[in-house]
Amino acid sequence: MTRHDAATLRQTLESLFAEAGATPTVAETTAHVLVEGDLLGHHTHGVKLANGYLKDLISGHAKGDDSVLEIHRTSPVAALFDGHYLLGPYVVQRALDHCRDAASEFGIGMVSVKRAHHIACLAAYLKPLVEANLIPLVLSSDPAVASVAPFGGLERVYTPNPLAIGIPGREQPMLIDVSMSTITNGTVAKTRAAGGKLQHPAILSGRGEASDDPEDYFAEPPGSILPLGELAFGHKGFALGLMVEALTSALAGFGRKDAPTGWGASVMVMVIDPARFGGTQAFLDETDFVARRCLDATPRDSKNPVRLPGQTGLACRKRYLAEGIPLPEDVVEAMREAVSRSSLAGTTAFG
Amino acid sequence: MTRHDAATLRQTLESLFAEAGATPTVAETTAHVLVEGDLLGHHTHGVKLANGYLKDLISGHAKGDDSVLEIHRTSPVAALFDGHYLLGPYVVQRALDHCRDAASEFGIGMVSVKRAHHIACLAAYLKPLVEANLIPLVLSSDPAVASVAPFGGLERVYTPNPLAIGIPGREQPMLIDVSMSTITNGTVAKTRAAGGKLQHPAILSGRGEASDDPEDYFAEPPGSILPLGELAFGHKGFALGLMVEALTSALAGFGRKDAPTGWGASVMVMVIDPARFGGTQAFLDETDFVARRCLDATPRDSKNPVRLPGQTGLACRKRYLAEGIPLPEDVVEAMREAVSRSSLAGTTAFG
Repeated sequence: MTRHDAATLRQTLESLFAEAGATPTVAETTAHVLVEGDLLGHHTHGVKLANGYLKDLISGHAKGDDSVLEIHRTSPVAALFDGHYLLGPYVVQRALDHCRDAASEFGIGMVSVKRAHHIACLAAYLKPLVEANLIPLVLSSDPAVASVAPFGGLERVYTPNPLAIGIPGREQPMLIDVSMSTITNGTVAKTRAAGGKLQHPAILSGRGEASDDPEDYFAEPPGSILPLGELAFGHKGFALGLMVEALTSALAGFGRKDAPTGWGASVMVMVIDPARFGGTQAFLDETDFVARRCLDATPRDSKNPVRLPGQTGLACRKRYLAEGIPLPEDVVEAMREAVSRSSLAGTTAFG
Repeated sequence: MTRHDAATLRQTLESLFAEAGATPTVAETTAHVLVEGDLLGHHTHGVKLANGYLKDLISGHAKGDDSVLEIHRTSPVAALFDGHYLLGPYVVQRALDHCRDAASEFGIGMVSVKRAHHIACLAAYLKPLVEANLIPLVLSSDPAVASVAPFGGLERVYTPNPLAIGIPGREQPMLIDVSMSTITNGTVAKTRAAGGKLQHPAILSGRGEASDDPEDYFAEPPGSILPLGELAFGHKGFALGLMVEALTSALAGFGRKDAPTGWGASVMVMVIDPARFGGTQAFLDETDFVARRCLDATPRDSKNPVRLPGQTGLACRKRYLAEGIPLPEDVVEAMREAVSRSSLAGTTAFG
C-alpha cells in the first residue's frame, strides 16, 4: 500500500478515461466519483473499478460520449433517462442535478434511469447535496446479474439492490448506503480470492444451508447471497430487495425481461427539499436530536461506541485528504496496462 | 373465535367511532382501514386497535373531527399535513388522495404528515392504488415511543419504523409492509401476554445479549428490539430505521425533540405513476417477469414454496370476505364496553 494523493489520482483517472474516448465532462465526473468512493473507505467501489470501466469503454459496451444520454422530461418533477450504457457516475450526477433543480422549485424531483453503465459507490454522490440541506436518494439494481435468491427459494433472481440516502445534520450528517442483501457480490468475490471465510453465514448453499464459505456460492448447484434478515427475518430483506427492483428496473421499463448482458444499472434518483415540508431548521433540529441520542447510548461493547451511518466514512475522507489514500503502489500502472491491453485486443472499440 | 362478516364489522365500528365523536367521513375511513387490516390477516393491527382509538377519542387525545386537519400545500406536488391527532387512517387516506391527484398530473406526489393519531396497518392502504397501476408508499414512526436501540447501543431510541409500498402486477401485485426492526412492539407484547418465547432471538437484553424471551424487554435494565439484520448485519437495519425516522418525523418538523406523549404518528406518503417514467405496460411486464422468476424458484423446503409479499394476505382477504373474519366472539362487545367505561371515566372528553 502507498498513500496516493486524491487530486493526482483524480487527474490521472480523468486522463485515462479521456484517452479511452470519454468526453471531458464524463471523464471528470467519473474520475471524481471513483476517487470519492475510496475517500469514504469503500475501496471495492473506488478507483479499483476503473479497470473494468476502461475495458468496457474500449470494447464499446460502455459509452463515454455524453451526447448519447437521452432525457425524457415527462413533467416538471419527473424524467426518464436512457443512458445507452454511458458511464454511470456521469449519468447519476446528471440525474441528481436534474432532481435538485426540480426540488428547488417543487420540493421534490425524481429521475428513473435505464441502461446506465455501472454507477460505482452510491454513498459517493451524497455529500454535496446533504451539505446543501437536501435529501438525495439513489437506488440501484443490475438487471444483467443475479446473485440473491428470493426468500425461501434456491435460485438467484436479483442483485443486492443497494439504497443510498443522505440525511442533513448540523453536527453529523448521515450518509446511508446499504444493500438489501446481507453482503454484496464484491465481498463474496474478495473473500474467495483471499481464500478466507465470511464474517457471518451470508451465503445460502445450493442445497439450502446457510454458509460462511464463499466457495458455496460458486459450487454446483450454485449458492446465492442471503437477503438482509437471513434465515430468520429474510422475508423482510427480500421484500425490500423487490422494492428496489421495482423502483429501478420496472419503473425505468427496462430490466430482466429484456435479458441484458454486460455491466449496467437501473437507477432511481430522487432529491427532497425539507424546506417544502416541515422546514429546514426543524429538520436539522430533529436529526441532530436523534443523532445525539444514538451517539450517547451506552455501548454494548465499551470498545465500540455507536456510530452513525457515514461517520466512519467521513472521518476516513478527512484523513485520506490530508495523508493520501492507501492503495496498492501500482494501482495507476495496472490501469494503464488494462487500457493498452484492451486497445490491442479490441481495435474496433471506439466505433 | 367466531367468523365476523366484514361489512357488518365495518358498520359497527363506524357507529362506535361516530358515537365517540368522529365525523361521518372519519368514522367510515377508520372503520374501513381497521377491517382491511384484519382481512389481510394482520389481526394485531386490525379492529383490535379500535379499543385504544375509542378511548383516546373519548379522552380527547385523539380527534375525530376532520376539520382539525391542516393542509399546507407548498407546491403542486408537495404538502405538509398537521393532523392535530386526528384519527390516523383518515389522515393517511387524505394524504394518499392528495398524492394521487399530484401523481396523475406530475408523476409523483408527496405529503409529509405530523401529529396523526395511530395509523393502523400500513398494508391496508395499498390495494386500491396498486389496482390503478400506481405505486403508493407509506412510511411511519411514532415519536412518543422508543423501543429499538441504535446498533451497538443499549438504550431504546426509536420505533420499528415500518415502510409499506404497493407494486402493481398483473398476476400478483405485491403489498410490502415491513418494519426496519426484527419484530414489532405488538409482537413483543403479544408473546409476553401469552407467556411464550419469540420465534427468534429478536430482543437485545439490557445487558447486551440477544434473547428470545420477551420478559428481557421489560426487565431492569430494560431491553430493546434488535434492528433488522440482528447482531451480524444490524447496522443495515439501523441505517434503514434512521432513514424512515428522517423521512417521517424530521421531514414533518415534529418528532422526538418535541417530546410528544400519547399515541401518534409521523408519516411520509408518496404516490408514483409509472406512466410518467418507463411506462405502465413496461412496468407490469417487468414486475410480472420478476414475480414469476421468484415463484418458480426451487423451494428450500418443499412444503414452503416462495411467497411474494402480500400473497398470503391477499389470499386471506379473499377467504375472509367469503367466510368471515375469525375474531373473538366478544370483539364488538369489548369495544362497546370500552366506550362506556371511558365515557364514565372522562366526562370532559368531547371538548
